[in-house]
Amino acid sequence: MKLQEQSQDIIDLCGDAVELDLLVSQMKNLMVEHINEGRKPGALVVEYKPPEELKTLIDLDLPYTGIGVSGLMPLLQNVLRYSVNSWNPGFMDKLYAGTNPVGIITEMLIALLNANSHVYHVSPVLTLIENSVSEKLARLLGMGEKSGGITCPGGAFSNQLAMLTARNYMFPEIKTKGYCNFGKKLIVFTSSGGHYSIEKTGMALGLGIDNIVKVPCDDQGRMRTDELERLIIQSLERKEAPFFINATAGTTVLGAFDPLKEIGKIAKQYKLWFHVDGSWGGSLLFSDEHRHLIEGSSLADTFVLNPHKLLGTPLQCSFLLASDRQIFRQSNSLGAQYLFHDDSKYDLGDGTLGCGRRPDAIKLFIGWKIYGIIGYKQRIEHAFKMAKYLTNLVKKNSRFRMVLESPPNLQVCFWYVPKRMIILDQEEKESKKYQTWKEQMSLVTKEIHKRLQERGRFLIDYSPLELNGKELPPFFRVVINAPSINEHYLDELVKEFEGAGEGVLEYLEENKKFQNGLNITNGNCYMNGNGHVGGNGVLRTLGRANGNNKE
Amino acid sequence: MKLQEQSQDIIDLCGDAVELDLLVSQMKNLMVEHINEGRKPGALVVEYKPPEELKTLIDLDLPYTGIGVSGLMPLLQNVLRYSVNSWNPGFMDKLYAGTNPVGIITEMLIALLNANSHVYHVSPVLTLIENSVSEKLARLLGMGEKSGGITCPGGAFSNQLAMLTARNYMFPEIKTKGYCNFGKKLIVFTSSGGHYSIEKTGMALGLGIDNIVKVPCDDQGRMRTDELERLIIQSLERKEAPFFINATAGTTVLGAFDPLKEIGKIAKQYKLWFHVDGSWGGSLLFSDEHRHLIEGSSLADTFVLNPHKLLGTPLQCSFLLASDRQIFRQSNSLGAQYLFHDDSKYDLGDGTLGCGRRPDAIKLFIGWKIYGIIGYKQRIEHAFKMAKYLTNLVKKNSRFRMVLESPPNLQVCFWYVPKRMIILDQEEKESKKYQTWKEQMSLVTKEIHKRLQERGRFLIDYSPLELNGKELPPFFRVVINAPSINEHYLDELVKEFEGAGEGVLEYLEENKKFQNGLNITNGNCYMNGNGHVGGNGVLRTLGRANGNNKE
Repeated sequence: MKLQEQSQDIIDLCGDAVELDLLVSQMKNLMVEHINEGRKPGALVVEYKPPEELKTLIDLDLPYTGIGVSGLMPLLQNVLRYSVNSWNPGFMDKLYAGTNPVGIITEMLIALLNANSHVYHVSPVLTLIENSVSEKLARLLGMGEKSGGITCPGGAFSNQLAMLTARNYMFPEIKTKGYCNFGKKLIVFTSSGGHYSIEKTGMALGLGIDNIVKVPCDDQGRMRTDELERLIIQSLERKEAPFFINATAGTTVLGAFDPLKEIGKIAKQYKLWFHVDGSWGGSLLFSDEHRHLIEGSSLADTFVLNPHKLLGTPLQCSFLLASDRQIFRQSNSLGAQYLFHDDSKYDLGDGTLGCGRRPDAIKLFIGWKIYGIIGYKQRIEHAFKMAKYLTNLVKKNSRFRMVLESPPNLQVCFWYVPKRMIILDQEEKESKKYQTWKEQMSLVTKEIHKRLQERGRFLIDYSPLELNGKELPPFFRVVINAPSINEHYLDELVKEFEGAGEGVLEYLEENKKFQNGLNITNGNCYMNGNGHVGGNGVLRTLGRANGNNKE
Repeated sequence: MKLQEQSQDIIDLCGDAVELDLLVSQMKNLMVEHINEGRKPGALVVEYKPPEELKTLIDLDLPYTGIGVSGLMPLLQNVLRYSVNSWNPGFMDKLYAGTNPVGIITEMLIALLNANSHVYHVSPVLTLIENSVSEKLARLLGMGEKSGGITCPGGAFSNQLAMLTARNYMFPEIKTKGYCNFGKKLIVFTSSGGHYSIEKTGMALGLGIDNIVKVPCDDQGRMRTDELERLIIQSLERKEAPFFINATAGTTVLGAFDPLKEIGKIAKQYKLWFHVDGSWGGSLLFSDEHRHLIEGSSLADTFVLNPHKLLGTPLQCSFLLASDRQIFRQSNSLGAQYLFHDDSKYDLGDGTLGCGRRPDAIKLFIGWKIYGIIGYKQRIEHAFKMAKYLTNLVKKNSRFRMVLESPPNLQVCFWYVPKRMIILDQEEKESKKYQTWKEQMSLVTKEIHKRLQERGRFLIDYSPLELNGKELPPFFRVVINAPSINEHYLDELVKEFEGAGEGVLEYLEENKKFQNGLNITNGNCYMNGNGHVGGNGVLRTLGRANGNNKE
């Protein structure tokens, strides 16, 4: 059926193979151009525009009469022009990187099939693939003979389904009668460095944010198991119902690994559900060299692993694995008869919170087929090598201070310390001066971040953090993930920081950003003339490796 | 970085434009072949294989050493071969149909960008597009000047976020302190024909399935507002906290439209949150002719609309709209500082339950740009025309009985009634005979469904249903959606049923499927020799249109 009244050209509402051929050929050219642009030395990651300005540069009008095929490519070109180019190795802002041609092919396949993997009969191959990949992942994690899993639309939803599954399994009466008159407060434990989706899930499930207990971390950002045990006992003494521990394998900011083995033992001892959020770090199972960081994964009741992060599959691809692959259906099914018929043990949707599902598992399946375990292993080991290279660059440059001396993972976190600004002495860290200094450092970080964004060659995020009971001012987090990152890009990155940092203190002072009387030109203790930084500064002390966490 | 030790050929872990060019060209050929296959007269929708057999036909092995690029296309070919071909108009099984070339291009764009639309600075254009499309949709629904929305990974998650937003807004203490000691039961109302995700959400949020009240439907599958009001009053008298009404615009099985205007008024009167699940029917706003079916949408606090259903965008694309576009962030934010920085009103992730988000809104944006409102209007009106055509075919064929005489929407629901099996008389509907007859009809439907699946030319689902207080045996639901459906395919569909139905009673009898003594060869009241069916049968009576529901 041809569309009538088109302004520019005729398009068929059904769309056939001829139309596809034409459009895909045109799209391919755009893609080639975009990838080449992203890989060009010195290219911008993004031509950044604030929202109000960008609105004037993109034609957001939604028309009554379509623009037809001839209008499509100019529109797409414009979308690409002002978007972040994740093919550029300078995109180091998030835990995901750009994808690869194999990933794009897989998304084309998914789009072509337009299949819903909720029931077997409309997605037979995709269902088997999801079962197969999940089982293989769970077995590699050592989760046992009955293990397996499903995909969810992202790590946060995987965490959500894990907690829900645990609650429904352990307290089935809440599933039917509700939590309102349950009497005992359900309590969840996660570390202060754990992902906020654990809190959001607890909030959604009606536990209340107050009942998501943040277990303190040690000075390397790992959950303190002594504190965990103390808090569980405290909760039991209060006659609460502690039921769920979230351990993190690769925290969002620092990349820290909670001690899974010890936490797993505590979970078993007190009969709590042991969940591991390995959204970021779980993929290390593909590397012989780094797999030890997730030792203890075999003890998990549920485990999340997001190949869309470290393995480069397209967004999104998140697996929720369980030691008992039947648990999702058992715990969560409502038995909707219109959809899930009599013999539906292959109908994956029944165990989830959603209904329609994208068949995300095939993204890892195809990638795994093409690259093999060895490909993922090389990808991971290259990234660790690059993270070490950057760490060394940063450490030997007096403009930077590491947050952790030895990053446990692929995030290299540091402050940029402008010339003439020193690191505060350890003995002063509790003082009012430290507060003021923190505010200054916060302004410095944000100003440099803004400048980096405007320069556009690298996209890098910043974050504040509470570590070992201490609030740290915002620092930069460089994520090393993309296999296209090499030494050259990292050398350039350091130069870029030096360029962006030029005159930052003077700028902030001139613009009256420093509010607390401590300015940078009076020669007081917060800076000195030659940029020398003492070895006993707060940051250096906080960052001292304690030797328990191998790289 | 080249992968070492590949078995067949070298592949680059980074992947560059040359590799993409090669792979996309090869993939394009596969796609063209697959689409042509799907559109070929007489082609199978699926070469159906049960799970155990299919496992032997797909190479599910996950290797240590990758198969390289040369292994990719044969693998993809095999995946396509055994998958459902949704380009075939015979795919009428679910509320979604195949997509179109424009949809595929958009997925290619999304894959190329590999962007996360949780914060503006990594997805600037995509964020503006999401805001813009959401606002336009909400305005077209009449939701007011402050309206807007966001996307969620499917209708079920949109419903979930709606209920959570309502709960957090109306009872903020539950967000922080939890629901455990809240004291008053939260109560949700939905119709007996509403989607099961409302129950799942209530279950997840800790309300308990028992507290999701199923309001009875009338004989056309619409929520009875007199019953709704009665149940609200009853709940208030019990000192409960009724807070959320889900009205459905286009139920899953029958396609019925709850009377939004009346329900909206009741919600306002009793101060309940008025949510509309228009996942399926919401898209009718694009049709002047059918928009009246969702009259009352302007009263909604939240409204779900899934363009991946009726508008043919690729799975998934679901909008959750609100009369106040700020409500999601206000109700649901936890203020995760590492991600959402100071000035983050454009950071859409903050108001959701997920973290990482696919930029699904661009699927509707690009489709809308290309086809225009007029294109969607034509698509919808064509579908209604075809649904009417099929309804007429079915009605004039004595082998079929309609469930509703005049389908309110694009689902044509009917029983296939084998020769010599009559429709039970109205006066017998409460008898044991009716139970037996229902069991027979259930077996007949399931057997024909199995046969249709094995024949493979059409994929059509079946469902049981409770309607107007009466349990109906499973019937077929033909979903008319794809714009490629024409009269010819529908003529073929009827013939296909006749072919599959051949000898079904005899087969079931021979295989001792009928357990209750009522067999088909003893000439009793459940059948007669000439296939005549009386006009006062239960099904016909149930199916009588009451004139309130325009087509």
